Amino acid sequence: MRIAIYGYGNIGRGVECAVRQNPDMELVGVFTRRDPRSVKTRTGLPVYSADSVLEFKDKIDVMIICGGSATDLPVLTPMLAENFNVVDSFDTHARIPEHFANVDRAASESGHTAVISGGWDPGMFSVSRVYANAILPQGRFSTFWGRGVSQGHSDAIRRISGVKDARQYTVPILSAMEAAVKGEAEGFTARQMHTRECYVVAEEGADLERIENEIKTMPNYFADYDTTVTFITEEEMKKDHSELPHGGVVICTGTTGLDNEHRQTIEYRLKLDSNPEFTSGVLVALARAACRMNGRGQTGCKTIFDIAPADLSALSAEELRAHML
Amino acid sequence: MRIAIYGYGNIGRGVECAVRQNPDMELVGVFTRRDPRSVKTRTGLPVYSADSVLEFKDKIDVMIICGGSATDLPVLTPMLAENFNVVDSFDTHARIPEHFANVDRAASESGHTAVISGGWDPGMFSVSRVYANAILPQGRFSTFWGRGVSQGHSDAIRRISGVKDARQYTVPILSAMEAAVKGEAEGFTARQMHTRECYVVAEEGADLERIENEIKTMPNYFADYDTTVTFITEEEMKKDHSELPHGGVVICTGTTGLDNEHRQTIEYRLKLDSNPEFTSGVLVALARAACRMNGRGQTGCKTIFDIAPADLSALSAEELRAHML
Repeated sequence: MRIAIYGYGNIGRGVECAVRQNPDMELVGVFTRRDPRSVKTRTGLPVYSADSVLEFKDKIDVMIICGGSATDLPVLTPMLAENFNVVDSFDTHARIPEHFANVDRAASESGHTAVISGGWDPGMFSVSRVYANAILPQGRFSTFWGRGVSQGHSDAIRRISGVKDARQYTVPILSAMEAAVKGEAEGFTARQMHTRECYVVAEEGADLERIENEIKTMPNYFADYDTTVTFITEEEMKKDHSELPHGGVVICTGTTGLDNEHRQTIEYRLKLDSNPEFTSGVLVALARAACRMNGRGQTGCKTIFDIAPADLSALSAEELRAHML
Repeated sequence: MRIAIYGYGNIGRGVECAVRQNPDMELVGVFTRRDPRSVKTRTGLPVYSADSVLEFKDKIDVMIICGGSATDLPVLTPMLAENFNVVDSFDTHARIPEHFANVDRAASESGHTAVISGGWDPGMFSVSRVYANAILPQGRFSTFWGRGVSQGHSDAIRRISGVKDARQYTVPILSAMEAAVKGEAEGFTARQMHTRECYVVAEEGADLERIENEIKTMPNYFADYDTTVTFITEEEMKKDHSELPHGGVVICTGTTGLDNEHRQTIEYRLKLDSNPEFTSGVLVALARAACRMNGRGQTGCKTIFDIAPADLSALSAEELRAHML
C-alpha cells in the first residue's frame, strides 16, 4: 500500500513515523506548498512540490492530507479526492455535514474513496459513542478532554499583544467525571466539567495584568471556564511544555432491565504522550481501509462509522478471529 | 425489524428487555425446547415450541439464539441459519474458527446472515482490541475481568459434593492493572492478574475443609489463582449475591515516534450491574446489523469485526455524522 503525505506539520511528521510501524505500507513522499528544498523530513523521505502532485496519480494508493480544518482541508480534500483516495482529520464539528457533501461529490464522481474526520475526537471518541449508543440506546454521554495541550487555545493566547509564547492545558474536573460515571453529569456546564491552565511567556515590559485579564475574559475560549494564568520564562516553557500530551474519556451510562434497575457504564479512555502521533496512527489505519474499500468499489466519502473494524487491521480475517475475538 | 428469541435463560430475558429500548424493533416471541406452557416471560411475550419454529420463517427478520456455548450453540446456530438470519453469543474462544466455518456454510448456502460471538468478551472487548491494534500495531494488550460473577466458575463449585449453592467473583489485581497501563504486564501469570473469591453454601454436615480444598486445587478453574473460600448461609447468598454484576477493562499500551519516545494508552472499560443484560444489548444491536446486511446481500457468517458501526445504530448516517462524530 503506497501512502503519501500532503502537508508537513505535526500530523505529517506523525504519519511519517506511523507508517514505519506498518509493514504492509510504504511511503512515497511528502507534498508541500512551501519550497520543497526548505522542508527536511525526519526520516529522509523525499519532498515534492504540491504543484507536481498529479504526476504521482498512479504511484499513490492513498493520500493522507495533513492540513488545518479552518481553511486548508475544506479546499484540499475535495480537490485531491478528484485524483486520489484520501484521508483527512477535519475536526470542525459544526461544518462536518458540509465538508462531507463536498468531498462525497468529488470522490463519487471520480471513483475514489475518501475518509474524513479521522483522529480521536472526531474519530475514536466518535465511534465509541456510536457503539455505546447502539448497546445502551437510552444511555447518557459525557466527554472529558485532558489533561492535555489544546493547540487552538494556545494559539488564541499567542495572538494577544505582549504574548511571546503560550501553552494551554485543558483539565477535566474529577468530581464531574465521577458524576458522569453515575449518569448524573447531564446538563453540566462547561465550567463544571473542565478548567483551563495557561502558561504564558510575556514580552519584556508587557502589562501582565492586562494579558491575564484578556485571556480570562476571552469569549468562547476562556470566559466560560475557571482559568488560571501563570507567567513563565522562555526557558521554563522549553523545559516543561515542549510536548503535546492529551487524552480524555467518553463515558456512557445507561440502564437496563424491566424497570431500568441495572446501571451499565462504558468508558473509552485515552492517555496520550503525543496527541499528533496518536492521531496519525488513526489516519494510517483509515488509509488502509480506504484503499481496501476502493478496491471493492466502495467509493465516495466515508467516516469511521462506515468502516468495518477488520478493514483497519493489517491482520487477515482468520487471524483476527483466532487471536482478537 | 421483527426479532425472535430462541432459548429463555438470563440472556433471553435480557433480550426481551433490550428490544423494548429500541423503537425500530418488535418482538415476535420466545421459542423454547421446554414445554411452552412451563415458560412464563417477563413481559407476557408469547412462548412457542421450538418444534414450530419453521412456521415462523417469514415472520421473523432475525433470530437471537440464547443458548450455552458448550453444547447448544454449536448445533443450534448452524441449524437455524439455514432458515433465519441469526445472532449468537458463542464464547468458547478456542472453538470459534470451527463454529465460524459451520455457521458460514449454513448461512451462505441458504442466503442468510449470521453474526456469531456477540456480547462483551468476545464482542466489545474484541473490537476494542482490533481498533487499538490497528492504531498502535506494536502495542501490548492486557485484559482484566471483574470484579464480577463468573457463572462457569460458580457452576464448577456447585458440582462439588456437599455444595448446595455457590457464587464465584473474579477480581482484578490493582497493581497488575497499573503495570498494564505502563505496558509492563506482558507475561504476567494468571495468578498475578486476578484473584478468585468464592462464596459457598454447604449442605448440613458437609466437610467444609474438604470442600475448600477441592475448590482451591481444581485444575484450570482455581489452582492457578489465589483463591479465597467463604462459607455463608442460604439467606446471605440470597441477600448479598443474587445479582450478576461484571465488567473489566482492555488496556493497550504502545509507543510512537521516531524512536518510540511517546507512550500511548487506550482503555476500554465496562462496569456492569447486569452481565446478561449488557450482553443482550450487544446482541440486539448486532441483530439490527444482520438484518441490514442481509438486505444488501451480505450473507454468510460475520463477526463484530465485519460490521460497520453505523449498521449497529438506529440513527441514520446523517444523524450519526451530525450528532456523534
